[in-house]
Amino acid sequence: MKKPLCVAVVGALGAVGQEMTRVLEHSSLDVGTFKPLDVVSNVGKTVVFRGKTWTVQESGAGKFTDVDIALFSAGASASEVLAPLAVAEGAIVIDNSSQWRMTDGVPLVIPEVNPQALKTHKGLIANPNCSTIQMLVALKPLHDRFKIRRVVVSTYQAVSGSGTPAIEELKLQSAAFSNGQKPQVAVYPHQIAFNAIPHIDVFEENRYTKEEMKMVHETHKMLDPAIAVSPTAVRIPVFRGHSESLNIEFVKSYELEEVFAILSKAPGIEVVDDPQNARYPLALEAEGKDPVYVGRIRRDVSLENGLNLWVVSDNLRKGAALNAVQIAQKLVEMDLLSR
Amino acid sequence: MKKPLCVAVVGALGAVGQEMTRVLEHSSLDVGTFKPLDVVSNVGKTVVFRGKTWTVQESGAGKFTDVDIALFSAGASASEVLAPLAVAEGAIVIDNSSQWRMTDGVPLVIPEVNPQALKTHKGLIANPNCSTIQMLVALKPLHDRFKIRRVVVSTYQAVSGSGTPAIEELKLQSAAFSNGQKPQVAVYPHQIAFNAIPHIDVFEENRYTKEEMKMVHETHKMLDPAIAVSPTAVRIPVFRGHSESLNIEFVKSYELEEVFAILSKAPGIEVVDDPQNARYPLALEAEGKDPVYVGRIRRDVSLENGLNLWVVSDNLRKGAALNAVQIAQKLVEMDLLSR
Repeated sequence: MKKPLCVAVVGALGAVGQEMTRVLEHSSLDVGTFKPLDVVSNVGKTVVFRGKTWTVQESGAGKFTDVDIALFSAGASASEVLAPLAVAEGAIVIDNSSQWRMTDGVPLVIPEVNPQALKTHKGLIANPNCSTIQMLVALKPLHDRFKIRRVVVSTYQAVSGSGTPAIEELKLQSAAFSNGQKPQVAVYPHQIAFNAIPHIDVFEENRYTKEEMKMVHETHKMLDPAIAVSPTAVRIPVFRGHSESLNIEFVKSYELEEVFAILSKAPGIEVVDDPQNARYPLALEAEGKDPVYVGRIRRDVSLENGLNLWVVSDNLRKGAALNAVQIAQKLVEMDLLSR
Repeated sequence: MKKPLCVAVVGALGAVGQEMTRVLEHSSLDVGTFKPLDVVSNVGKTVVFRGKTWTVQESGAGKFTDVDIALFSAGASASEVLAPLAVAEGAIVIDNSSQWRMTDGVPLVIPEVNPQALKTHKGLIANPNCSTIQMLVALKPLHDRFKIRRVVVSTYQAVSGSGTPAIEELKLQSAAFSNGQKPQVAVYPHQIAFNAIPHIDVFEENRYTKEEMKMVHETHKMLDPAIAVSPTAVRIPVFRGHSESLNIEFVKSYELEEVFAILSKAPGIEVVDDPQNARYPLALEAEGKDPVYVGRIRRDVSLENGLNLWVVSDNLRKGAALNAVQIAQKLVEMDLLSR
């Protein structure tokens, strides 16, 4: 019988960190010790995990010597310093930040897409970008069957992707509007309430945002470098649940019935597609749920072998915390915990 | 010297009707008589136009005999009956509903795109769909130069496109949320506050919505039947201003500098594109403004001759009222008022 695991959550009090704790709590992982770590200002606060209360400690040197798995959601700059340290102390790090995703030798993994990449891990595994995860869960079974040539994706992203302060900002701006006051702008460069902002993360040289280019690079690393991806990433006033409009061009011809059949039985996907009864994926209905919801499945009217999809998932669950915990479960299943 | 015009607004108290009055008020049209018409329940209410108060009358037979131009925004079913009647009584009807747009012999016109279509009018002229108008104002100068093969468009549409009750619904749902109450759903099939609904107008046989197919058919009628259009239309919690993510494939190769130059001098367009200073078109900034704002101009990373754009415009102005009044002005300019 195996020894129960010691699992740390780094950034335990952030929006994703809290979700990691909730997902971990309901997972099948045998967690003997739960170790919430965060910045010094949160030290001493407590987190309830599986009925026991655990005290938040400061993350840093010496904190990972007894840790089997460390789920990191502390941002890219914290991860740059802390993740190698945790690995050196013997933990396996599953990092939710963008810091290590494109680093050679660091597996970037969605369990439904490329679990085999875990086999070569050296202690550090990267959790992909939220927008990329839900897109690739939907694309993977279709790529296997019809080979994808190109994807045009426009996102409708929730504010929780920017963390707790952004959630508060949308609440405060909405309340201010309802009370006839001027909404205050702090987290985003513009008011997000009642607006759509085509600007997520910083702009790069090529006039795309980093968020947009993540969708390109991560698709190439995890699914297939031959797939052409044209992304537009947009923040909208939704709390949880990213939506995506996908236009897909296949190499092979297809029948719509087969697309429905493939998606319906694919892992991690739930098809919601009954337009006559106004049933399609919705951000509000994805909140707190695990699946990647796929709907509005229809043949492209503009292109031979084209397909349009509407893909929605909870960005804090499958887009972050759930995928990280599923990686941990996969490591256990594949017996890849020891290094 | 010409006689001042008698201009009627049918549906004068609706969201678009009110906007038509405001736009008309500030137009160069020489309006001698202003005639607000609406349903019987609004009869007796008053509308101020250019400093004078005008009383709302019921629209119906006999009301158009003295009218030169009737701006219709009363919905498709009212327009089906009233527009031919108004034309028979001698008025030129500019109809904002979808009723007549695809009818042979009825010009469907965006003044920046196909003003020449007005020459063959027989008294009835159709105003295009809001989403189509702003898309085609942006596409027209690029099509003239580089020839467009295909457009993939995903929309981010404001609730005002569904009229005053939808504006109220978003206000009420947002206030309910802020007060910890459950938002009530009436106008849309699902809660629109803090959500994204990929369902505008009814679903057709091909699994597209009527709103989506309008963008296909109207593009073919006004710009070029050879342009392939793949649309996804989505309602988001914004009051005014539709945003659109456009992915364009040109037949000819292009330089990005020339795209900027063409868009910057094109009629009806204002380029807002300074990403390093977080400047790009925004729904909130388009509210109450006339231009079609174009930004996020960038070379497609996935396709030779591909271009991505972010296009925003006030759906009640250029998307409805302003375009209708501009058609009226064009009729005067082109001396096409008499039939």
